[in-house]
Amino acid sequence: MTAKSQRHWDGEVGDLLRVDEGFHLADCDPASTPGYLKGKKAGAEDLASGVDELSDLQERLFARSRVDRTDASVLLVLQAMDSAGKGGIVRHVVGSVDPQGIALTAFKKPTAEELEHDFLWRIDKRLPEPGIIGVFDRSHYEDVLIGKVRRLAPAEEIERRYDAINDFEKRVVDSGTRLVKVMLHISADEQKERLMERLDRPDKHWKFNPGDVDERMLWPQYQEAYQAVFDRTSTDHAPWYVVPADRKWYARLAVQHLLLVALEDIDPQWPRATFDVEEQRARLAAT
Amino acid sequence: MTAKSQRHWDGEVGDLLRVDEGFHLADCDPASTPGYLKGKKAGAEDLASGVDELSDLQERLFARSRVDRTDASVLLVLQAMDSAGKGGIVRHVVGSVDPQGIALTAFKKPTAEELEHDFLWRIDKRLPEPGIIGVFDRSHYEDVLIGKVRRLAPAEEIERRYDAINDFEKRVVDSGTRLVKVMLHISADEQKERLMERLDRPDKHWKFNPGDVDERMLWPQYQEAYQAVFDRTSTDHAPWYVVPADRKWYARLAVQHLLLVALEDIDPQWPRATFDVEEQRARLAAT
Repeated sequence: MTAKSQRHWDGEVGDLLRVDEGFHLADCDPASTPGYLKGKKAGAEDLASGVDELSDLQERLFARSRVDRTDASVLLVLQAMDSAGKGGIVRHVVGSVDPQGIALTAFKKPTAEELEHDFLWRIDKRLPEPGIIGVFDRSHYEDVLIGKVRRLAPAEEIERRYDAINDFEKRVVDSGTRLVKVMLHISADEQKERLMERLDRPDKHWKFNPGDVDERMLWPQYQEAYQAVFDRTSTDHAPWYVVPADRKWYARLAVQHLLLVALEDIDPQWPRATFDVEEQRARLAAT
Repeated sequence: MTAKSQRHWDGEVGDLLRVDEGFHLADCDPASTPGYLKGKKAGAEDLASGVDELSDLQERLFARSRVDRTDASVLLVLQAMDSAGKGGIVRHVVGSVDPQGIALTAFKKPTAEELEHDFLWRIDKRLPEPGIIGVFDRSHYEDVLIGKVRRLAPAEEIERRYDAINDFEKRVVDSGTRLVKVMLHISADEQKERLMERLDRPDKHWKFNPGDVDERMLWPQYQEAYQAVFDRTSTDHAPWYVVPADRKWYARLAVQHLLLVALEDIDPQWPRATFDVEEQRARLAAT
């Protein structure tokens, strides 16, 4: 399935980026642009026309939820190493539609209260309502990523979590949510450049944290933890998409594409009037 | 004070739109464009350059809250008769900045749980955190607008609420929030046209509710209730701004202006690094 408004794809991007059996993260080139033979300029055109389509679909989805009983919603889950571009996706892809229809949650280190509950407790509370496009900037996957790498939980608890995630996501999908799980995949070299830029520019210092370097030193462990996530939680009902992200324009275009496909799959129609249009016209005219 | 990026104002828009003693809503022409002698085209230019300034200021405000201890935030309160353009403000003014820094709440008819508490209970919970631009699409003012017109509470309770609002807003402002209270003021004729358009276009039916005509029939009572709101709650610490809204381009430009002025007043600076930049550069280089 291909998003109608993006004209320059040369392949089925969903198929190309989806994590299927036998996927190896190490074989995925972060600088590649799978399915897109044209360059940045065509990409910018496609992104702009995609904005219009995304806005239209989002408004229809929202409209339905205001009038009909619909259970449809979308949930974009964004995971990545630091500086891979989650913020840019939020700003330039998600931020292009009406804020009314968006529910964005940035998950931080769990609070004391959150730690008293199961790791999915805080996630469950932030699932999107019908009609809404939810966005998770980090997610329950942190609990099997940093959770595993930093040994924040015993190994058997990490094991249990993969299955718990699959069950949880099955329930989410069955309740009408299109789940779009994206890992933005950058190279270690590209991350180094981006972190260095944050150090070079005073207006970027706030985005830098010494802890970012600590995490970077565990790069191979994180790549392994991601591979385990893909092996264990890329399911038929909730597959993962690994989006090469060294080229920001490609990553934004590809994520926009995945959102468009999810919304086209819902195919939201303008809801019918729940009132008699002529009657209301007459009432209004009389005022 | 004038927003730097908007070049074509001929007057101090804040002074012109602010509700001061002796203000009469009936004297305010909804089709006027106070302080702006140029037309729609210059307005579009100013709105576009205002977007860049607003984005920059919003990012600085957000950045500070991530690093320093700042208490500064902004809260835009939007009130209006139906179809006056609150949604357009949210979409085109608020929606032009990074969604990460925005907390939007659309207040609907109170739920059973909300009704069990004081009317400010649900409002208090949605106040913006430091660093955030909060937006209220409708607000606690509904409780002295529809609350008064529809007699949802006894007269003495309505009276009590004005004072409660003033006390509440004083606390909000003292805690570091710049409060920008805006009433979008349209004419009854313009509303009729806009509601009729919603009936004429199937893709707008979802925005129409037969109850909108019922409320419209109480137009004079609502104008009176707004006048009482201005008389009782336009204070030094939290003044009201009445923005003529028959011309959408003017209303958006004026609200953007008020937000810009609030942010310029905070004057958020990029936070200083809380780490030794050279040291981190060396650590990063070694990876």
